[in-house]
Amino acid sequence: MDSTSPSPYRMRIKNARIATCAGHGSTDEARLDLREHASIVIERGTIAYVGPDDDCPAGMYHRVVDVGGRLVTPGLVDPHTHLVFAGTRAGEFRQKMEGVDYRTIAKGGGGIGATVRATREATDDSLTASVLARMRVLASCGVTLVEIKSGYGLTVEHELRLLRIAREASHRRMETAASRDNPKLAGQLLPRTTTTLLGAHAVPPEHAHDRAGYVELVATEMVRRASELRRLGLRETTLADACDVYLDENAFTVEEARTILTAAKAAGLRVRAHVGQFADVGGAELLAELGGLSCDHLEVVSDEGLRAMAAAGTRAVLLPVAWRTLKQRPPDAARMRAHGVAIAVGTDANPGTSACLDPLAALGLAVRDAGLSPSAALLAVTREAAAAVGAETGRLEVERDADLCVWDHDDPSVFGYVVGGLRPAWAISRGMTLVGGPEELGAAVFR
Amino acid sequence: MDSTSPSPYRMRIKNARIATCAGHGSTDEARLDLREHASIVIERGTIAYVGPDDDCPAGMYHRVVDVGGRLVTPGLVDPHTHLVFAGTRAGEFRQKMEGVDYRTIAKGGGGIGATVRATREATDDSLTASVLARMRVLASCGVTLVEIKSGYGLTVEHELRLLRIAREASHRRMETAASRDNPKLAGQLLPRTTTTLLGAHAVPPEHAHDRAGYVELVATEMVRRASELRRLGLRETTLADACDVYLDENAFTVEEARTILTAAKAAGLRVRAHVGQFADVGGAELLAELGGLSCDHLEVVSDEGLRAMAAAGTRAVLLPVAWRTLKQRPPDAARMRAHGVAIAVGTDANPGTSACLDPLAALGLAVRDAGLSPSAALLAVTREAAAAVGAETGRLEVERDADLCVWDHDDPSVFGYVVGGLRPAWAISRGMTLVGGPEELGAAVFR
Repeated sequence: MDSTSPSPYRMRIKNARIATCAGHGSTDEARLDLREHASIVIERGTIAYVGPDDDCPAGMYHRVVDVGGRLVTPGLVDPHTHLVFAGTRAGEFRQKMEGVDYRTIAKGGGGIGATVRATREATDDSLTASVLARMRVLASCGVTLVEIKSGYGLTVEHELRLLRIAREASHRRMETAASRDNPKLAGQLLPRTTTTLLGAHAVPPEHAHDRAGYVELVATEMVRRASELRRLGLRETTLADACDVYLDENAFTVEEARTILTAAKAAGLRVRAHVGQFADVGGAELLAELGGLSCDHLEVVSDEGLRAMAAAGTRAVLLPVAWRTLKQRPPDAARMRAHGVAIAVGTDANPGTSACLDPLAALGLAVRDAGLSPSAALLAVTREAAAAVGAETGRLEVERDADLCVWDHDDPSVFGYVVGGLRPAWAISRGMTLVGGPEELGAAVFR
Repeated sequence: MDSTSPSPYRMRIKNARIATCAGHGSTDEARLDLREHASIVIERGTIAYVGPDDDCPAGMYHRVVDVGGRLVTPGLVDPHTHLVFAGTRAGEFRQKMEGVDYRTIAKGGGGIGATVRATREATDDSLTASVLARMRVLASCGVTLVEIKSGYGLTVEHELRLLRIAREASHRRMETAASRDNPKLAGQLLPRTTTTLLGAHAVPPEHAHDRAGYVELVATEMVRRASELRRLGLRETTLADACDVYLDENAFTVEEARTILTAAKAAGLRVRAHVGQFADVGGAELLAELGGLSCDHLEVVSDEGLRAMAAAGTRAVLLPVAWRTLKQRPPDAARMRAHGVAIAVGTDANPGTSACLDPLAALGLAVRDAGLSPSAALLAVTREAAAAVGAETGRLEVERDADLCVWDHDDPSVFGYVVGGLRPAWAISRGMTLVGGPEELGAAVFR
């Protein structure tokens, strides 16, 4: 090593039970890949070793942490959120709970329209402050990567603004990267973000009589500007990584979605969609045809749709708090698995149908309500959630980002079993402490 | 003030929206009693003033905190937990999710029996460590008082041991009372506990052929020893504050419960019961007759039972994670309210049917599943939950304990609306910081 290259920061976590979530094979157990008496080595923010304690490379470590047989998993990924919004819809929630119909609420100025108005009126600063507060809650739950959609702007400028705010949350995170050796700043580290253009969340009031014009606007200028490289802080980046469409009865049609998503794909964005929340209009087949990352919701989907998704590797993203809020029949996870569709779970954090910032509470409901197999639960918030956003994380493998959580438990079946209050003792994002730390290792709350 | 009496520590929180939960009147809104531009003064751990900012007494304050219009509520009360247990039942949860019947699981060595075995075998230290870890999670959710039941010992010595461990968690809390001026220790403060003897949780294997003998044992020696004054640390106290019975089909009968609860009442314990989780066997009427604090679960209850509860002031305690785990039809909160029964909500934290440590996640499910009115939601985890455990807290009134939470929100309808991730910025227990603090006031996550 030459003198200009300082020794890289190397940390070893040892005496762990590691669920790498990187295993091969057809069973959930094989994919979880639980390793006993295992170590993980982090170097320059990536994983340099994962395997038996006894085979761990010797050499200099700046830090070695014995986690006493505790479980180490990939950091959690929340694959579906609408995190940039202003305004509460608790009053509307009250109406919903009293049985008032969704459409009646929308006609009375509620629904997405209410959030669009409040979000357009909000300042950048206030939107940023609330996004960061939400991300801090997610971080405390062990989330190291969160997908954030736009969709409450519904004009080119407003949609781009929401994407920029979501992107800059990542930047803000990077500004504190220098905090590695300053524990006081460690709490300011935030999950990374991946961003999704959801211009086709609803037809905005300005286009109430020009629906085709709005679809055209999304498919052209909005997609183009969301996908062009620009300088943001110190980076060259696009504002969006992916494009989403709300594809359903009373939302966008398959043909409208095809127009938008085909344009997005041509512009280099990954594609996904809200599919089958209320009705099966053929969205699953379209997304499969386009090689989409995911179909989200899927309360209603045909066998043909599921088969197409399985063949295309398109994930199902289940959003339990939404189906509970809307008092819907949950989707059938066993049927999805029988068709070979891999399943992820998200918070769907949004002010209308899913006021939730705890992905593990959502996961507990997915198991109870939708029959998601407990053995697939951890995969649904790590590996499959990462796949649903097209991210190279959610698995503990050499050369991947060191995004991981240490839990006070030793059994991965705690995921899905616990509905609220399960949090990591230590979460690490690209090798840096996101929340907690070795000094917070303690007793298990559910074992 | 003479020189031997130092000036008492006085703190003022001002510019708050205070939901005192101490209002009179028949509507939820009147009982919530939301005050704008309000102050609360804490002196020697109790509330010395609550009312308009402008009328707040002048004078010396050691600390004045402007909370910028944020919501202040009573500290949360979790009125129903089984917090002292060892051993996970995640494997059994997996069987349950696969549709295996409750009784089949019990016959295979699962169910309460599995937790009884693991808990009896666990050391005091390991039980204490896990109870404290669970209490820390509850504290982070804003819980300032938690009810803890025994019920996994099922012998006199084991039940008393579990009650002692639950009691000592309070003591441990008191040891750190000196931490008021040491912020590093503040995080070690824990919620206060109230304890409940649940010797009649199940008939233990030793009495499988002598059911009557076990009921007699609970009603005599167990009740006597749980209710006698003893020195514990620096205090004279009983081990239990209340007595509970699991009263249901395939559990204890009304007559068995009557024997036990009558004895408990005579010994000075408050009484309550698990009622109607699976079948209506007349438990609500019995508890009303005995002036019981609460009937908990109530998935199945008659109109007569509800009327009797209303007349007696017996609370209903809803336990949403249990009904979701058991895939049951939820209780009907609107029907309870129509009969005049006041409703509380708890986590039911236990390893079998309700692996949950977030009372506000449970509350969000109670609103969605059971039709608990959103306007009654906050009351269900403060005032009514306190009433369900017979505690003089859950209301912000002069001379009551200063147990309160400051939230980054300004609207009490956030409670019930959010399902996971809603936590106070600052929780205060008898005037001392339990979690967070003024420096953690930030942006609202759902508004």
